[in-house]
Amino acid sequence: MTTSPRFSPAASEFDFTSWMEAQLHHVEQALSQWVGVDTPADLGDAMRYAVLDGGKRLRPLLVLAAAQAVQGLQQAATRAACAVELIHAYSLVHDDMPCMDNDVLRRGKPTVHVQFGEARALLAGDALQVLAFELLTPADAQVPASMQAQLCRLLARAAGAHGMAGGQAIDLASVGQSLTEAQLRRMHSLKTGALLEASVAMGMACGVVSETAQQALMRYAQLLGLAFQVVDDVLDVVADAATLGKTPGKDADNDKPTYVSLMGLEPARAYAQSLYQQSLQALADSGLQNVQALSALAHMVVGRSH
Amino acid sequence: MTTSPRFSPAASEFDFTSWMEAQLHHVEQALSQWVGVDTPADLGDAMRYAVLDGGKRLRPLLVLAAAQAVQGLQQAATRAACAVELIHAYSLVHDDMPCMDNDVLRRGKPTVHVQFGEARALLAGDALQVLAFELLTPADAQVPASMQAQLCRLLARAAGAHGMAGGQAIDLASVGQSLTEAQLRRMHSLKTGALLEASVAMGMACGVVSETAQQALMRYAQLLGLAFQVVDDVLDVVADAATLGKTPGKDADNDKPTYVSLMGLEPARAYAQSLYQQSLQALADSGLQNVQALSALAHMVVGRSH
Repeated sequence: MTTSPRFSPAASEFDFTSWMEAQLHHVEQALSQWVGVDTPADLGDAMRYAVLDGGKRLRPLLVLAAAQAVQGLQQAATRAACAVELIHAYSLVHDDMPCMDNDVLRRGKPTVHVQFGEARALLAGDALQVLAFELLTPADAQVPASMQAQLCRLLARAAGAHGMAGGQAIDLASVGQSLTEAQLRRMHSLKTGALLEASVAMGMACGVVSETAQQALMRYAQLLGLAFQVVDDVLDVVADAATLGKTPGKDADNDKPTYVSLMGLEPARAYAQSLYQQSLQALADSGLQNVQALSALAHMVVGRSH
Repeated sequence: MTTSPRFSPAASEFDFTSWMEAQLHHVEQALSQWVGVDTPADLGDAMRYAVLDGGKRLRPLLVLAAAQAVQGLQQAATRAACAVELIHAYSLVHDDMPCMDNDVLRRGKPTVHVQFGEARALLAGDALQVLAFELLTPADAQVPASMQAQLCRLLARAAGAHGMAGGQAIDLASVGQSLTEAQLRRMHSLKTGALLEASVAMGMACGVVSETAQQALMRYAQLLGLAFQVVDDVLDVVADAATLGKTPGKDADNDKPTYVSLMGLEPARAYAQSLYQQSLQALADSGLQNVQALSALAHMVVGRSH
């Protein structure tokens, strides 16, 4: 274990663009190596189609940034980064299916069920979800067993009925309903927030961190998750399909409540900015030195155009 | 860890019926306590409907019988037994959906998508799969972290693209195709066999076992998995819906290859008997004393009428 590489403290001049490019390259390589390889029939094709060459990789970047903040084990962080992306990818595959959102466009490409048929989309999503847990439990000892178990624990809780899947169930039940802000907040804190928070928690679990720093980083993650959803709702109203890479206006069409429909467009934008400022304060409160990437990711989330 | 209860060596007079009743009661209680509790919207109802009050619980019984053979930790074995049943249950929910087998009857009840709608069935299946991994990674130390990681590893591999999900993909691609016996065997070894073998492997992972005994028990598990599928194909031809609890003749109707269509009915029955005898030999080869439950489960698999 002592010989496994750890993240080094960042150089004093932190270049986010270079950092992100390097991390994205690393994540794409790892995903390409691990997803849908030697897989029977065309299941592997559907899995790779769902995961590779697309997506912002926000969750993997959060894992890696958090792992860097605590100087965690690189091998564990790479696996955690890929695992959380697989959960995200599977949720999109299933969410796009005709019985759910019935969406035909995702990341500018036909959705998986359009490309491969519904049965294969269903199976590919199932296989991606469980692959996440396979990645987290390598048989070699490069990742200590206690870390493996903790990563599985964090991911399973975030993805399940008391996390992402539960949020989707509330979302499903809320179509045509008028939600209060508290109800909307709860739905999103499960549907989207739980996995974003788990990304930060899993990154931290790759290293050692004080209770104070841990609480501050979890507060950062909660604020980021909320900001992410507010910006998502804003973009659903103002962006076009080409920029967004998916069909815009779906939520409004489906009569789903959003932060924009609840607060109005400009107040929603201002709310996102306020959440961003609070997330920076949380990072400062952590007392950790290497939070530049986490800080830049929060900026990216609030400033994104798709 | 040393204070955690372990399975005791069985009494010299082993009563399978009493053993099974006690184990089933234990598993039902544990599942009822863990599945779909405090779950948002009606997701929990769909999860509980899919899991509780139905099913033969063959996989949990295999976990518990294997754990007993190696005098494993009871707490770990209970969690492993429930986890493997959740994977089985989720696979049935998704397999029954219109885009897959489009089955309306399961265990004598309407299938989950008939009862709760397709979207909730999809979500409930997803939530059941991930709950399996949540059960395997309790935050308390009653189950050692290395055991937690090993149980997750075994289950993830068995359920994923190189196991159950991969077998389902082959099955999907095989409709209307003429398969050789080798191809049919491979499909079932993934689709059904992988999870049955994982049940035995997970039970063994709850204790300590010699390499020889481990190999013998895995051979037992492979033979049992194969026998299970052969008997399944026989029952699909000879049983009626009331006995079977699901729509019979589906495989023949769907032009799916089966052991019966390949070998004929009587040779398939004889093959199942031969596999049973070989599985008993594997148990004898293990050198383990407490294999009575495993032996009786093999007998049950080959003799079952549904």
